[in-house]
This record gives sequence, structure tokens and C-alpha cells, in this order.
Amino acid sequence: MYNPNLSLEQTHNFAYENMLDIIAVGFDPKKTFIFTDTDYAKSLYKIAIEVAKKTTFSTAKAVFGFTNETNTGMIFFPAIQAAPCFLPSVLKGKEVPVLIPAAIDQDPYWRGIARAVAERLGYPKPAQIHCMFLPGLGEGGKMSASQPETAIFTTDTEETVNKKVANAFSGGRATTAEQKLKGGQPEVCTVYQYYYYLFEEDDEKIKERFQVCSTGKLMCRECKAELASRVNAFLKKHQAAREKAKKEISKFILKD
Amino acid sequence: MYNPNLSLEQTHNFAYENMLDIIAVGFDPKKTFIFTDTDYAKSLYKIAIEVAKKTTFSTAKAVFGFTNETNTGMIFFPAIQAAPCFLPSVLKGKEVPVLIPAAIDQDPYWRGIARAVAERLGYPKPAQIHCMFLPGLGEGGKMSASQPETAIFTTDTEETVNKKVANAFSGGRATTAEQKLKGGQPEVCTVYQYYYYLFEEDDEKIKERFQVCSTGKLMCRECKAELASRVNAFLKKHQAAREKAKKEISKFILKD
Repeated sequence: MYNPNLSLEQTHNFAYENMLDIIAVGFDPKKTFIFTDTDYAKSLYKIAIEVAKKTTFSTAKAVFGFTNETNTGMIFFPAIQAAPCFLPSVLKGKEVPVLIPAAIDQDPYWRGIARAVAERLGYPKPAQIHCMFLPGLGEGGKMSASQPETAIFTTDTEETVNKKVANAFSGGRATTAEQKLKGGQPEVCTVYQYYYYLFEEDDEKIKERFQVCSTGKLMCRECKAELASRVNAFLKKHQAAREKAKKEISKFILKD
Repeated sequence: MYNPNLSLEQTHNFAYENMLDIIAVGFDPKKTFIFTDTDYAKSLYKIAIEVAKKTTFSTAKAVFGFTNETNTGMIFFPAIQAAPCFLPSVLKGKEVPVLIPAAIDQDPYWRGIARAVAERLGYPKPAQIHCMFLPGLGEGGKMSASQPETAIFTTDTEETVNKKVANAFSGGRATTAEQKLKGGQPEVCTVYQYYYYLFEEDDEKIKERFQVCSTGKLMCRECKAELASRVNAFLKKHQAAREKAKKEISKFILKD
């Protein structure tokens, strides 16, 4: 949850919104606990300094490309990031293996730092699953927090979703006539990606959508309207669950 | 309280003993609060990351002589060390100037880090008093945690004190005859230093002791026996106060 460009307060707001999403999708409070680095700093800091003692600047530099101008918070941060890998072992007082789901950009923390020091500290090496990046709506599937129009947020209104999807980068042609002739380009279309990863569960139907698009039988307007309606149906349910989650959040949060 | 060669547990034990000493010498619980970096990590960490963000590796390197082989815990540590300078401002929600008493070896933390970032973070610059090093009993007045015989600890027994003082490096000559002839050398004598800094409050008497020693009228055995007796008188009282402090410690300790 660290972003050097955000204030602590902004980080906390994002963390809070993330917690609501996690609870809203149905995690079991008996098996789930959530903490933020700063609110759980006492426990994490103790583990992080163990990790940091075994991590030289050379190592951190090789793993993350740090330079002399890197600030000392970023240099220490990999140790904080690695700490949750060992937290279950510390809390249970025995070796507890962990599995970390994260996108590939987080890989250096687990592979370069946490796994490198684990055994020297007497903890099991953490394992990881590389998750797919959720595609964005910008050209090339880019998503950026500084360009909110390139991503649909779980807090977006129906109107916002309609607008974002309507403006999403697609593989459509300049004119309807051209598209009917040449077909669309689902392989570069962010709308198609949204169906593929999130909003079309049926494998046959997703193949079919590729087909009708690339052969010019499906126009972008219709395809986008259908996606927006699926996104909105999901968000309506999800946002209701988020409201409920606000009352349940204390069951999930761990402080020390 | 950071020493990279000590485990967390050892650090905590030293911290606990230090707390007892502070309370035993009579600090007022209404005006005093004591914390350890690890038990108060939640509050300190939040301030430390503000400091660390404004401190590049270049700066830390220039101030502390860090190299690429320095571990990332030591690199971050100056930010943790600086955090208490700003803690009163954070706790009171307004600018609270602080004055730090510390030995000169700690100077780089306040001057090189805390004072350098204070104004950019909206805190007043900390002020400092350089305290004298307490002299040790080894040759040259050295004191080392790994050589317990070079220092008198507040937990030492009477017997241990007698032994340590008897073995202290003094300015004495090889034989009594030689000492009577040439005089002792109070200017290199650790026993004299102990009187000077701690166990002779009367300025006239300390001058007199210098005089009788350097003119060969005072022999080391006698001078050491007198010091040991003064140290033991102090420790008897201090150790009783330490016992009492154990019951009062919770009034002083701040956790978060």
C-alpha cells in the first residue's frame, strides 16, 4: 500500500476503500484479518528490522535499482513489505508457510528480499502467485490513478461507468462503414479485455464475441453499452455489499 | 538504544534497566514519559517515514559513512532516531521545541538528520546539549559493554565494585617507593576521573586530591578503597530506589 507520491492520509483512504472491497466480495471474517502498515507498525517494525539487518544496501540496490538519491524510507520499505511473510509465524509461534497473491510488479519484494532472508531468520520461504493485472481503459490497456477515466472504480456511479466505458479505447474503426467492412480489432480493445477478464464467464460466448467483432457484425456502441450494463449490475450489488461492509469492518481489522 | 550487535531481547533488557535508573534518580512521573522504539513503534514509525522521505541515501552516507554493505536497517535508523524530536509536536498538535541531552557521538542524528529536515516537515529544529562521556575504568578511560570490568554498572554488587575499582587503570607507579618519589599521575588515572566527574562534589577537595596524589603523598590502594566505598554507598541507596522503581515503572511508560 506504499506509494511515495501519496500522503499518509491518502494512503489510509485507499486502504479503507480496499478493505471495504475485500469484505464486500465475501471474505470470511473468521479466516481473514486486515491491517495497514502504519496501524500495525509495532508488530511489523519488529519483524522488518530483523529483515533489514540481513539486507544490505547493495542487495536492495540490485533488486530495486536504488541510487544514492533514493530516500531512506524507500530503502527500508522492502523490509516492511517483507514483514507480513513472517508475521503468521511470529503470531503463531511456529513455522507457518505463506502464499502471497500479488501482481508481478511486487515480485522483487518476495523473491529478492523475503525469500532471500527467510531461512537465515528461521522462517519458511514465502510462496507467491502472480496475479494478472486488471486491464485499464486507456490505449494499450493502461490504467493510472492520476487518470481516473482509465479505470472503473468500485465506487463509481452508473453515470460515470457509462461515460468511462463509452470513452474507453477500443479496436473500432473510424466509421461504421469501415468497421462493417474490415471488422473491429478485439485484440487491442480494452472493452473486449473487460469482457474477457471480468464480465463474460462463458468461454464459448467470449470466443463468439471475438468472432462477431472481428468480422464486422458487432459495432462498438452496442458492445460498450452491454459492458456498461454488466458493470453497473455488478457494481449495484457490490456497492450494497460495501455499505454493509462498513458496519463489519471492525471484525476484520487487526491493530496492535 | 540501537546497537546492531544486540538482539531485540537484549536491547529490551538494557532498556528496562535504563528505565529503572532514570526513575531511581528521581524523575517526576508527571513530567516524564519513557518509551522504547519497538513498543512505541506505531507513533515513531509514522514520523520516521516522514523524515526518511526527506533523507536520501547520499545524505545518510555523508553523515554516517554508510557504504553499500551497510544494512537497510541501519540506513533507516537515523529516521527512527530523529522521530522523538518531533513527537512532542505531533502529540500536542502544535510546534513544541525540544532539547536533547546526549553524548557527542549522537550529534550526527540531530544535526545531520533531524535539524536538516525539521523545517521542511513543519517542525521546530531540535536543540541539543552535549553531555560528557562517563569515564570508564580501562586504560585511557575506555568503557566497553563487551568488557564489563571496564565499567561499574548500577546493578553491581559491593564485591564486584571493590574488585573493579581495585583493578581500575590508575596513574600509579610500579612500586610504592617510586610513587612516593615521583608521585602518581592523576591526569591519566581513571579513579581520579571517577572522583572528578561523580564522587567528589567539593571543588576544593578534588584539587587537593590531585595535589596529594601527584606529590606522592597518596597511594593508589587507599585512594581506590575510598572511591569503592563512595560508589558502594551511592549504589546501596540507588539500588533500593531501583527496587521501588520496579513498582512505579508503569506510571512512566508510554505505549501506543
